[in-house]
Amino acid sequence: MSDYVEGKLLIIGGAEDKEKECKILKRFVREAGGKESRLTVLTAATEYPGQVGAQYKELFQHLGAAEVQVLDVAERTSANNERISYELEKATGVFFTGGDQLRITGILGGTRLGRTLHRLYERGVIIAGTSAGASAMSDTMIVGGEAGTAKKDTLTMAPGLGLLHSVVVDQHFAQRGRIGRLLSAIAQNPYVLGVGIDEDTSILVYSDGRFTVVGSQTVTVVDASPSLESNVSEISPGQALVLTPVLMHVLSDGYGFDLKRRTSHYKAEK
Amino acid sequence: MSDYVEGKLLIIGGAEDKEKECKILKRFVREAGGKESRLTVLTAATEYPGQVGAQYKELFQHLGAAEVQVLDVAERTSANNERISYELEKATGVFFTGGDQLRITGILGGTRLGRTLHRLYERGVIIAGTSAGASAMSDTMIVGGEAGTAKKDTLTMAPGLGLLHSVVVDQHFAQRGRIGRLLSAIAQNPYVLGVGIDEDTSILVYSDGRFTVVGSQTVTVVDASPSLESNVSEISPGQALVLTPVLMHVLSDGYGFDLKRRTSHYKAEK
Repeated sequence: MSDYVEGKLLIIGGAEDKEKECKILKRFVREAGGKESRLTVLTAATEYPGQVGAQYKELFQHLGAAEVQVLDVAERTSANNERISYELEKATGVFFTGGDQLRITGILGGTRLGRTLHRLYERGVIIAGTSAGASAMSDTMIVGGEAGTAKKDTLTMAPGLGLLHSVVVDQHFAQRGRIGRLLSAIAQNPYVLGVGIDEDTSILVYSDGRFTVVGSQTVTVVDASPSLESNVSEISPGQALVLTPVLMHVLSDGYGFDLKRRTSHYKAEK
Repeated sequence: MSDYVEGKLLIIGGAEDKEKECKILKRFVREAGGKESRLTVLTAATEYPGQVGAQYKELFQHLGAAEVQVLDVAERTSANNERISYELEKATGVFFTGGDQLRITGILGGTRLGRTLHRLYERGVIIAGTSAGASAMSDTMIVGGEAGTAKKDTLTMAPGLGLLHSVVVDQHFAQRGRIGRLLSAIAQNPYVLGVGIDEDTSILVYSDGRFTVVGSQTVTVVDASPSLESNVSEISPGQALVLTPVLMHVLSDGYGFDLKRRTSHYKAEK
């Protein structure tokens, strides 16, 4: 078991292509077993589970999955229901939709379904999540925060699903101007790497802590571990941040990064 | 004479406070000689020179400048007019307003007034610029470009005033989500440092190539000189960028940076 991940994760920055090439969703189906795959869509994050669940079900069927089920788990009582966990057990791939990451953790955290999810992951089942489903992957997750300038206390964080360690993920990254809030997050503990994922872009994280970028835009990794100067413990809420130097890596489709060694590696696959 | 700058520059990221503390504009007046200062406001960038010029004139008078004149140079014939250059010669501080940076260089470039500006600067007169006036300071300037993901060819550049060397400046930086376009700019030649200045924030650049941050938000320096991997020469227009690793420095009021050594230095002044 690695320090970072036990199975495979596909973490998507939201707004993934669902009409043209569907590169990211296609990759999910392939990693989950392709024509042999049994996929479970978890709509816990969204307030429109019927609509969102049906859309992904149709998409994954169209992309060649053998079986697709939607589990609409909207309450903790459902998340503790034995039958529902039994349904999840059959999955070779799990997909978290977008919505609100606090709904995911608030509903699944500490339940039977939450434990089943971890067990599947440890067995090597691929767990995917888009938008809110991406944020929820890590130990500590970003729940909200302003776009714009890096400031203290303009972002809120909470405990996540704990599938990805020592990393904070942000999504819709470049599209919503979130570099400032990601820097504010890692300033609070530079041990944690910041990974900002653009829309229609994802990282496929392997069990050895390496990831590969899949998608049309970029992934930005910020590493504040080399920083020598930070004002995070001194400034008042709302004041502008100081953090220097920070290592930054801008990566696109096919490029990789090693979360353990904190270095990029060159184009490994296409 | 330094490799970088000859005199003093005050480069403002736009939307500087004009109502409360007026920290940046006050600093400009002080650096230009305070009660002895003779300021010239150049409204070349704006299409509303009357209104903008009058506003800054009133502000600088209110902040204690001895004399403030507005030079409304809207055409190259005016920029070549001997009397207008003579008027500029008297200034102890020059202020470029916001607007369109191409108006500044299109009107001043290669004229008598442009040469006078450089001469003043070499004599040690402080040259300030906000927004478009900030972008215009460097050898090569950013003229336009999309917010969002770092991509090839989504930004346009042009020759600037040439007062600041080996640097590309971007303004309204965090507020308009411009980290991607600044990274695209420096990827094209990592010899050039990227300096992104937020609103109500400025850098005061000294003749030795050091600068100090003045203002309420942050200044972000991106240095791609350590980068080992870049796809800038391979990708097609619009494709996502790769640039890794990049050094990044997030600085706020009172913190400094050395443009020659490319290192931050700690709080020097307040």
